[in-house]
Amino acid sequence: MKVSILAVGTELLFGQTINTNAAYLSKKLQLKGFNVMYHYVVGDNPNRLKQQLADAFEHADMVILTGGLGPTQDDLTKEMVAEYMGAELVLDQRVYEELNAFFAKVGRKMSANNMKQAYMPEGCTPFYNAAGTAPGFALERDGRIAICLPGPPREMSWLYENCLDQYLDKFVDKKIFYRVVRTMGIGESDLETMLLPLIDGQTDPTIATYAKEGEVAVRITSQRDSMEEAEAAVTDMIAAMSDICGEYIYSINDEEMNEVVVRLLKNRGLTVSSAESCTGGKFAVSITDVPGASNVFGHGYVTYSVDAKVGVLGLDRELIEDKGVVSAEVAEEMAVAARHLSGSDIAVSITGYAGPDADEGFNPGTAYIGYAYEGCSGSRLIKRRAVDRAWNRNNFTLNMQRTVYLILKGEL
Amino acid sequence: MKVSILAVGTELLFGQTINTNAAYLSKKLQLKGFNVMYHYVVGDNPNRLKQQLADAFEHADMVILTGGLGPTQDDLTKEMVAEYMGAELVLDQRVYEELNAFFAKVGRKMSANNMKQAYMPEGCTPFYNAAGTAPGFALERDGRIAICLPGPPREMSWLYENCLDQYLDKFVDKKIFYRVVRTMGIGESDLETMLLPLIDGQTDPTIATYAKEGEVAVRITSQRDSMEEAEAAVTDMIAAMSDICGEYIYSINDEEMNEVVVRLLKNRGLTVSSAESCTGGKFAVSITDVPGASNVFGHGYVTYSVDAKVGVLGLDRELIEDKGVVSAEVAEEMAVAARHLSGSDIAVSITGYAGPDADEGFNPGTAYIGYAYEGCSGSRLIKRRAVDRAWNRNNFTLNMQRTVYLILKGEL
Repeated sequence: MKVSILAVGTELLFGQTINTNAAYLSKKLQLKGFNVMYHYVVGDNPNRLKQQLADAFEHADMVILTGGLGPTQDDLTKEMVAEYMGAELVLDQRVYEELNAFFAKVGRKMSANNMKQAYMPEGCTPFYNAAGTAPGFALERDGRIAICLPGPPREMSWLYENCLDQYLDKFVDKKIFYRVVRTMGIGESDLETMLLPLIDGQTDPTIATYAKEGEVAVRITSQRDSMEEAEAAVTDMIAAMSDICGEYIYSINDEEMNEVVVRLLKNRGLTVSSAESCTGGKFAVSITDVPGASNVFGHGYVTYSVDAKVGVLGLDRELIEDKGVVSAEVAEEMAVAARHLSGSDIAVSITGYAGPDADEGFNPGTAYIGYAYEGCSGSRLIKRRAVDRAWNRNNFTLNMQRTVYLILKGEL
Repeated sequence: MKVSILAVGTELLFGQTINTNAAYLSKKLQLKGFNVMYHYVVGDNPNRLKQQLADAFEHADMVILTGGLGPTQDDLTKEMVAEYMGAELVLDQRVYEELNAFFAKVGRKMSANNMKQAYMPEGCTPFYNAAGTAPGFALERDGRIAICLPGPPREMSWLYENCLDQYLDKFVDKKIFYRVVRTMGIGESDLETMLLPLIDGQTDPTIATYAKEGEVAVRITSQRDSMEEAEAAVTDMIAAMSDICGEYIYSINDEEMNEVVVRLLKNRGLTVSSAESCTGGKFAVSITDVPGASNVFGHGYVTYSVDAKVGVLGLDRELIEDKGVVSAEVAEEMAVAARHLSGSDIAVSITGYAGPDADEGFNPGTAYIGYAYEGCSGSRLIKRRAVDRAWNRNNFTLNMQRTVYLILKGEL
């Protein structure tokens, strides 16, 4: 089936917002077996929206619109879609009650503008939105399918996952199953070379590698008559992959490293603590991002200044002056102190330069990661000459997670 | 002048690449006084490219195409544009020589495919590319202007800055100026209602609100004969806005709240520290995201467990058991302790439920923010019944930033 994506919002044409929704939906639709034909962006202008919708249906059976479902006057997507498809807007009792309940709960008054969100095109399939107030919907008329989703990416993806994905099933003949295997410690081209015997001449399942920040992911996809067949084919392929490169695989279920670390710690009844300088608390945030992290994480120290390293962690000021605040010794002592103060089983620390500047003799991107666990402590040097502060801080955080992972695997 | 942007590349329709080029160009074009009408994306398909180009010229005088200028067989943008505009491709001696020199330098043989990059539409204005091998160009025919730029964002922006920006000067009559005003503490529809007297019947400057995570931004845009006039009109409008809703405005320059907080602290020579439970360090991360944060932030405590609140911050275990770990009293004591331990001027703390679960009698989204500064301490209740853990943690963090902001403004 041919699908196009039409994003509505003047902020996109002003370049203030990047159209990540189109990329998100395209990836999902592609994996489901749809052909994405075009992306379009129009501003909050009712006539141009209607005209572009008509143009889009010249080349596609289904048009997915994002944005313009909010409560303000320039949010007109629903109205224009209903008009184009020839459907009346009628009060949706459930949305009306949910809106009422929402505004009662947050203790705000529902405005007349908010009321218009309770009206839906007659005969549509509503997608009730638990991630926000604007519901989405699908409307089918004369072989044309218009689907409306809200613009905020978090709400849009929530509605895709919880409503639209299922709705689309009826248009798919073959069933698609895929898994994303996550690997670490090997580059993309080396991994691809190892997997060549599996990739060559293989039409189903397909194997595709993707370089991600600091790691490589592998997507294994099968398209068969039944979901069971597709899943079995993917499972067999993952087993074959594991024989070849199992040592690099840390998840066969598209988990992030922080999720794997929390799961492993929880399974073993172990705890971790952190002492962070240049990452400013990003490791602690990454661990506590995982629900249930309180079982494995209790204490984090953000010791950004030398005073904090001395006053909070009890480091020797002379050691810092002697070795330098960014040094293997300071990193190791920070981890030893964090473990001691918190009573955790494992501690990890970092001191380094996130950039854009660094002290003389160092480049931004340089950091020492310290670690400590029963009977052992040490440090690892991270060196990736990069000036981008955000990139460095992410890379440092991933390497702190990886340090804990390696300890848990008995490899450090 | 009406402009549309047409991106060419199947990787965009697969969702593997996000169309950041369209946002980049839109921002530049708006600031130059062009009206960006539409964004389009098509795959590497010659017929659909030509058809979409024709459609685009139905609604715009100028179409800027990105991508499809490379040396491979599916790079056909230049060929299709030349054909549509009725121009022959002729050898460009300068590009030919530059390509020759490039391949001599890297020690590779120039392939026949590479040779096709040396052909340019007859009569075009070439944009020679010092950031890559594919040149861009502008081609004018019968009042229509087609502009081609390479797809890689680094090359595209290099050509914009160094060639296209100047080329576009001849088409500009009116000048556009805009500012983005950031507000926090008021919902989008309430804010719009307050601003209605300014919005209604107003053609220039225009006022547009858009909801961001946890806040509302307002874009004020003016299009006048000179940049000075446009800027003055926007400045006047911001003054009028400030009279109506000034208490909610925290930046008239599109700054993030963490940037504003760091700037205000730095200007006053003040420091802040934090004690975080449910946010797991996100406040500390948000402050240290800003380069130069070390002047204003030294200490952060991530006290996720009760043991950490007692052991690190020295809270009374009986108080925690008596009032509950999520309580106004515990939040306030956390802030008082963080300020005392760190010696900072201001301390901010949080204890709450990020979700997806919460203890009985509470909803995820509920948290108490504590604060302490010279001679004063207290707490604020945050209550936004939301089950999304990431959303709650972001909202909590923004509210911690806002708490420090309100203290700095003398409003708390």
